[in-house]
Order: sequence, then structure tokens, then C-alpha cells
Amino acid sequence: MSTQEFKQAPHKLLVIPGPIEVTDEVLYANAHPSVSHVSAEFVPVFGDSVRMTRDVVFSKTAQPFLISGSGTLGWDQISANLVEPGENALVLNTGYFGDSFSDCLRTYGANVDEIKADFGATVDVAEVEKALQSKKYKIVTVTHVDTSTAVLSDPRPIIAAVRKVSPETLVVLDGVCSVASEEIRMDEWGLDVIMTASQKGLGAPPGLSIVLVSERAIKVFETRKGPVSAYYASWKRWLPIMKAYESGSAAYFATPPVNLIYAYHQSLLQLTKANLSLEERFKLHAEASGRVKAAAAELGLKQVPVDPSAAANGMTALYCPAGVKSSQIASLFMKRGVVIAGGLGSQKDTYFRIGHLGITAVEKSRGDVDRIIQVLKEVVAEATGKSA
Amino acid sequence: MSTQEFKQAPHKLLVIPGPIEVTDEVLYANAHPSVSHVSAEFVPVFGDSVRMTRDVVFSKTAQPFLISGSGTLGWDQISANLVEPGENALVLNTGYFGDSFSDCLRTYGANVDEIKADFGATVDVAEVEKALQSKKYKIVTVTHVDTSTAVLSDPRPIIAAVRKVSPETLVVLDGVCSVASEEIRMDEWGLDVIMTASQKGLGAPPGLSIVLVSERAIKVFETRKGPVSAYYASWKRWLPIMKAYESGSAAYFATPPVNLIYAYHQSLLQLTKANLSLEERFKLHAEASGRVKAAAAELGLKQVPVDPSAAANGMTALYCPAGVKSSQIASLFMKRGVVIAGGLGSQKDTYFRIGHLGITAVEKSRGDVDRIIQVLKEVVAEATGKSA
Repeated sequence: MSTQEFKQAPHKLLVIPGPIEVTDEVLYANAHPSVSHVSAEFVPVFGDSVRMTRDVVFSKTAQPFLISGSGTLGWDQISANLVEPGENALVLNTGYFGDSFSDCLRTYGANVDEIKADFGATVDVAEVEKALQSKKYKIVTVTHVDTSTAVLSDPRPIIAAVRKVSPETLVVLDGVCSVASEEIRMDEWGLDVIMTASQKGLGAPPGLSIVLVSERAIKVFETRKGPVSAYYASWKRWLPIMKAYESGSAAYFATPPVNLIYAYHQSLLQLTKANLSLEERFKLHAEASGRVKAAAAELGLKQVPVDPSAAANGMTALYCPAGVKSSQIASLFMKRGVVIAGGLGSQKDTYFRIGHLGITAVEKSRGDVDRIIQVLKEVVAEATGKSA
Repeated sequence: MSTQEFKQAPHKLLVIPGPIEVTDEVLYANAHPSVSHVSAEFVPVFGDSVRMTRDVVFSKTAQPFLISGSGTLGWDQISANLVEPGENALVLNTGYFGDSFSDCLRTYGANVDEIKADFGATVDVAEVEKALQSKKYKIVTVTHVDTSTAVLSDPRPIIAAVRKVSPETLVVLDGVCSVASEEIRMDEWGLDVIMTASQKGLGAPPGLSIVLVSERAIKVFETRKGPVSAYYASWKRWLPIMKAYESGSAAYFATPPVNLIYAYHQSLLQLTKANLSLEERFKLHAEASGRVKAAAAELGLKQVPVDPSAAANGMTALYCPAGVKSSQIASLFMKRGVVIAGGLGSQKDTYFRIGHLGITAVEKSRGDVDRIIQVLKEVVAEATGKSA
């Protein structure tokens, strides 16, 4: 059968902050017949995926790594390849995923300092400057959007502080919940590493760890003093593979997730080669986000991010009405065929999260945002005993 | 649309030793609409996949780990969780994948000794006994079928030697190219670890690292002296997740490859719940293998495995006719719509590999084995300038 004939099965509307709703074309690509990972047929699909990954963050020079794994594997890649045991890392922590990045760095022997923002807040740049003056850090990490809180941290003032105080320090962006839904200009901004995953703004099923590394960071990697402290996550193994596929020939270290690469390739085509520019896509994400956040405010729901200008455009995190638990809110959404997420971490019962990423934000004709808002109104009414 | 309506697109017959041809039902499951990884809908799918993974190796008690990644990630799991830095590992090396396992173990700090078989041969058990007497090994690793050579190593005499000489040593089976195509009785034989991947005998797309760990090995893991030396590959992180899903509740460490778990689940249903028993499936693999190997012998082609009783049932590795390179053989197959693999490693030009795994071996009505044999005859005739 052909891609035109394929239609995904009817299902509940999935609006958690990843995995997200994906197109029929992406799912059909994921159902591609089995193909050899080293075949002439597959090589350009992988090579183009590498190239288009660069396009999504407006980079001309970064080295993408597309490796079978969860987004989490990106932390291992960064920790094992860029930070040597005993070196210092500074983690700007705006939620659950900052905690985890620190854990991962420590596992591979880094000395980690954290600047921890209050729940829902961003980190103070003056504090970052102070920390950078106090000791030499190999990397500073910023979670662009912490999926646990929807807090959006602008990496640009952080990069400026690093350039001023400690220009050799590499700036790493955890973009798992921001790539393709928030504007990121890797080269122009001077980011050294961006890590992300396939199942959020990039609009493919989960199972692909995606990391982009600047030329400068590749040089730091290539001039390590000691060996890389992981095997599967080692760029020493993967760098020749990525270069081979991009230049049009196959190479083998570990079998890539062939079907998922077809799906990711299809999604990248829709992201980067469609009529809609990336800039327009960001605008549509901001618009969808604005509508959900305005509707929530009208219902008297408070956002988790304390500063409205530091809230994600791809998701919304809202405190529950007084006396209501997030699990109740999620159940009431589910009753209406809409899947949202509860909270994450120690305050998980007190707030809930709605994703508006990818086609949910961009393809208005689907009516996903209208439906989210309508159901949100009904759910709040039912939960608080008022009529909608 | 429904699974009955879905048909995979026409394509070349893929008979490399993985990825393999998979059923329409498996591909349709891989095109499942997006689902939350923590939803009530997904939890039993993951939980049943864990349980059925155990069934495939006739285990009642092993702990399966299903983690997004290539098969290679299994080496990291074993190296980082079971062997502490400075401990000894003994690798029984029957090809390319033995070399790689050693590299991985060394990366995580193990002292590795290898017993290296000649190309195409298996390791001598007397040598293994001698090595086990010489020092204390934490693990011994056996590559059940080395995908590079098709050499089949029976783990039973190795396990017997270990039990006699060094009963505390854990026996690890690299079953990437053997699980579901060769008989493995994990509990009865006393294997401590089996690692494999989704895209070979298990009949799903690539992207899932599958490891089974005996109760005894879990105890060794749980009584480690030092911390686990990897983050993403850490069983400390994954053990509670696997237990949660199996017991019917969701838990989060990293987003599982939801679509691929649906596909793997579908394949496991076909493997373990179909009319055909696993024993019958092994017999059909042996039969398909016997037919391919007999046809090759009739054509005067020599197998890479030197001992016919130590050759895989899921694949065949054959030396090229004199003066012919494996790339030529592969091209001649390709011209006829059949995809096979060249060699791997330093002798890669001199031999080629044919996979006969999963539905290719088991579903006789597909006629895959007939086609392999017919095309092999034509290819050898064309390559050697004789008429078929």
C-alpha cells in the first residue's frame, strides 16, 4: 500500500509534553518494510536526516549525532565525551531534568555545582557570573524548557556571561522539550551542544537521542586527555559513522533504528521543506501557547512558571484548582478523550501539564487547541463543582 | 484503518542476519498512534512484553530489561552493572563481536582476557577450564552466534566448566543473533545473563536492547562495592521501572520507545502465543538452514564455520568462489531483488552472509528459502561464468 492510503487508527488526543501527535506520513514511514542499515537505499535517508537536523537549529557547522536511545542518552553522551573525571560542571537547575543531568554528570566523575532556581523560576544570571568567576568550569548546562515545570530559560544571557567571564567553558543546552518548538540559533548564539529527542517538537515516535555538537566542542572532545568513559555513548565510535552516512557511504558501529530514522526523516521533511518556514512554526507554537495560557488565566488557573515571559511555547504547566489533585484533573481530561500529564517530582500532585507541540500547535485545521481549551473549561468546572 | 487493511509496501527480500523481514502485523503495530508512555493503555503492553521476553528463553525467574538502544547497549549494561573496575572478565572470542565486547568491558575498567578461536572455529573448553583455574573471573562471556562468522558456540560445556572450576563466575551469553532462532533454556542451563536485540530472531524493527538477568546475577549487581559506572545503562535506574510495568503500574526514568514496544509486543505474541511452539520454530530454523547449507555445498561453496555442527541455524556464512569478492556476490543478489550481507572484519571481502531468521525460515508459504537457493545458484553461476 502507499502512504496516501495509510490512516492511523482513531485514538485519544495525546497532548502531553511528548510523545506528541504525529502525522500519518510519519507513522507510515515508521512502518517501512525492513531495510538493511548499510544499503544504498538507506544511506541517503540517514545522511539527509543528519543534514536536516542541523537545519532545525539554523546551524551550518554543528556535528549531529543520531543514536538509538531515549533523550536521556544525550546526558550520557555529554557527560562521557566532554567532561573528564574531576573536571567541573555547572548545572543551571530549573526542575526535575536539571537534577537528572547533575546525577548523570556525577556518574561519569564530574564535580557538579548547581545553581538551583526556586520552583517555577529561572536562574539569576548574576549568580551564574559569580559562579563562573569562582572556578573553572568545563561546561555550563541550561535546560531550555524543563519539561517538569514548563520554565523557559533563555540561553543567550548565559552565553554572554560565559563569553565575558570564562570563554573556554562550553555551553550545553538541554533542548529535549524545545527543539523545533522554540527558536534556537545554534551558530549565531554560540551554543556548543544541543541535546534533544525525537518525540517532542521534532514530531516522530520516541527512540532517538539527537545531539548537535559545535566545531569548538568537537575539538575539545578530540583533545581529551583520557579515554571516553562510555562505550555505546562514545563519540569516538559514532563520529566516523555520522560522517560516513552524511558523505554518502555506510559504516557500522551498532545497528541504527532504521524504521525510526525513516519516520524522523519524514518528519524533518515536513519541518524543514514544507511551505511553512521554521519561523512561522515558532510563531504558531507561540500563538497556540498564548491561547491555552489565556484560557487558563480566565479560569483562574495559575501557571507554574512565575514569570510569564519565561514560560514555554510548546507546553503549559498549571496549578490545580484548590483542593484538587493533578490525577483527578488528568482523569477528567481522559474521560473526554484527551490525554494530558500530571506533575513531575516532589510537587507532582499540585499541578498538571498540557503539551501543544508539533501538529497540535501548527495544523490549525485539526482543532486540537480548540479542543484542549474546551475540555479544560469542562474539567475545571467539573472539578470545582461549577458549571462550565 | 485496521491491522487487517495494512499491507507493507513491495520491497526487496531482506535476508541479512538482521534486520530481518517482519510481518505486516508487526509493522502496523510500529505505526500505532502516539500513546503516553505512562498511560493505562500502554502499561500492560510493556508489562506483557517483559513477561513474554522471559518465555522466549524458557525462564521463570530472570529479570528482563527492555531499553531503547541498539543491541550494543547490552554490552554497556553488562560491563557497567556486573563488572567493577579492576575485576577480571574472560571473553571467549569467536569473531568481530567478541572483539567489541572486550573493548566495551575495558572501557568500563575490567581486566579482560580473551581466548580467541581461529577464524571460523569455536573456543576449546579445556582452554577455558585452564583460564578459570589461573585466576578469579567475575564473568565469562560467550557469543552464542557471532553474526560476523555464523559460528555457533554451545554455552552448555562452558557453563559446566565454570560450575566445576569457578562456580561464582557469571556466565553471559551474547544472544543477539541467536535468541528465538536457537534454543536457549536460561534457567535449566544456568545462564546468568542473555543479551539480545529486537531486529533478529525476535522479528521486530531495530531499536531495542533486550537483556535478561538471572536472580543470582541481580544479587551480584545489588551487592556491588562501588556505584554503577554508567547512567543511561544503569540497572539501578531501570530495575524499578521494569518491575513497575510488569506489576501493572507506570514509572518513569527515560521515555521508552513506545511504538517499537507495540511492535515488539506484536512479534512476541506471534512467537509465543501462536499455534507454532518455540520448539517447532527452532526446528524450522534448522530445516531452512540445512537447505541453504546443502545447496551451498552442492555449488562447491565452503562455510566459514569449520565444524558443521558449530554453525548457526539462523544464518549461513559462505566463502566466495575463488577470485570473486563478497561485494560482487552481494551486487548479483541485489540485481535479483535479494539483499544479503558481505563479510565483516579483516576478512570481509572473502565471504558473504545470508540470514534465514524469523518468518523467512518459519513461514514456508512465503517461499523465501526457495528464492534464496534459486538466486544463490544463479549468482554463483554468473560470478564464476558457468550456466546455472
